[in-house]
Amino acid sequence: MELCHKTVKSRTAYSKHFPHKCQLPLGHSGKCLEFPFLVSLSKTHPRIAAKIVRDATMTTGAAWKSSQAGPNRMPRYVAILDDDILLEKFNLDMQSLPEITRLKIREKAADYDSCIDVARKLTWLAYQLHGAPIPDSFTKNYLEEFFGPMVAGSTNCEICKLPLTIDLFSENRVGKAAVETAHKTPRLHNAENVGFAHRFCNVAQGNKSLDEFYLWMEEVLTRVKML
Amino acid sequence: MELCHKTVKSRTAYSKHFPHKCQLPLGHSGKCLEFPFLVSLSKTHPRIAAKIVRDATMTTGAAWKSSQAGPNRMPRYVAILDDDILLEKFNLDMQSLPEITRLKIREKAADYDSCIDVARKLTWLAYQLHGAPIPDSFTKNYLEEFFGPMVAGSTNCEICKLPLTIDLFSENRVGKAAVETAHKTPRLHNAENVGFAHRFCNVAQGNKSLDEFYLWMEEVLTRVKML
Ligand SMILES: [Zn+2]
Ligand SMILES: [Zn+2]
Ligand SMILES: [Zn+2]
Ligand SMILES: [Zn+2]
Repeated sequence: MELCHKTVKSRTAYSKHFPHKCQLPLGHSGKCLEFPFLVSLSKTHPRIAAKIVRDATMTTGAAWKSSQAGPNRMPRYVAILDDDILLEKFNLDMQSLPEITRLKIREKAADYDSCIDVARKLTWLAYQLHGAPIPDSFTKNYLEEFFGPMVAGSTNCEICKLPLTIDLFSENRVGKAAVETAHKTPRLHNAENVGFAHRFCNVAQGNKSLDEFYLWMEEVLTRVKML
Repeated sequence: MELCHKTVKSRTAYSKHFPHKCQLPLGHSGKCLEFPFLVSLSKTHPRIAAKIVRDATMTTGAAWKSSQAGPNRMPRYVAILDDDILLEKFNLDMQSLPEITRLKIREKAADYDSCIDVARKLTWLAYQLHGAPIPDSFTKNYLEEFFGPMVAGSTNCEICKLPLTIDLFSENRVGKAAVETAHKTPRLHNAENVGFAHRFCNVAQGNKSLDEFYLWMEEVLTRVKML
């Protein structure tokens, strides 16, 4: 699908330096939109729609927030910029941050188009959760054009492969959502590599890739059985 | 082994209400000691000895420290006391804390004797790490009396069953030790139930018991292979 890609107005502190692009089909009628595929979901499930935008486009800062200086959250497509541009345009002096903070920011970095594509993929997956609303025909056609036919109730936890229900998205444990956006290979932020997962599965996977994690399980079980 | 159990002087804020007990054999010569089995290790590996005392006797507060009021660390044998005693003797008003904080404190609770026994068990395990010092004969005999013969290099990660080396105890990742004290069944703080584990293994196990965790792995691998 060819997209409009005209610049969309945005009020964020970063938008001056980042043209947000219209993701509607080329030659569309009506006004340009950055997240046309989320318009419908944001009416029925505003928190899930907001989570998709946040997970797709923003770094998470919690891990370094408490102990060391450094920005808490920023767009992933800002986190990808060179040190001198971050200093000049955003007044963020990466050199002054502890190395661990710099690494944490950098490992969340992704380009703008990948972030938008991740948001599209997560929306496609969200509509295939158990209990998800049926998408309207614009949204269905748009998302299927990118990722293929949607099958109701077919979205599993990326890690443990159990079906995920839309209700899980409103469950919290100690302020953490029960479902997180997971990466099959850590730090690779693109549509192919992302999915939803139980928080505890995502925590368990840790820094391993999904393949490494399954291999680790096999090895552990082998050793346990030898005892 | 019958123990002396005379009250040992201690300077902590809690010791007024908690008789710390001498753990030397009954009828011992010399002065009374609460951790006689750690005297030798605290000379060669003071940080490991301190970690054993800390993990065996103290709650960890990190999880609730940042977001919500409540004490950061306290002895596990204080955390086990009734609300009214905590208020009267330690000026800690549990009722005023959020429920999540109260639960976090209570799930670390253990009685004094169990804490001491956990410290003994961890010391016994520490001497069986790859690269551990050979215990002097007092320490060896004392610990083997409780937990049986020690075998050099036989302490494995409680979870993944790989051998642990003493060097791992000085490795850090983002300020967290690479080795943690793990509980086969979460929240059961006694000698039988504790061991050392890689931090990432302990994080992966999460709230599951070790048996539940292995079963979960089996089920996940089965589902992955069916795909
Ligand atoms: Zn447009
Ligand atoms: Zn899962
Ligand atoms: Zn004594
Ligand atoms: Zn391990």
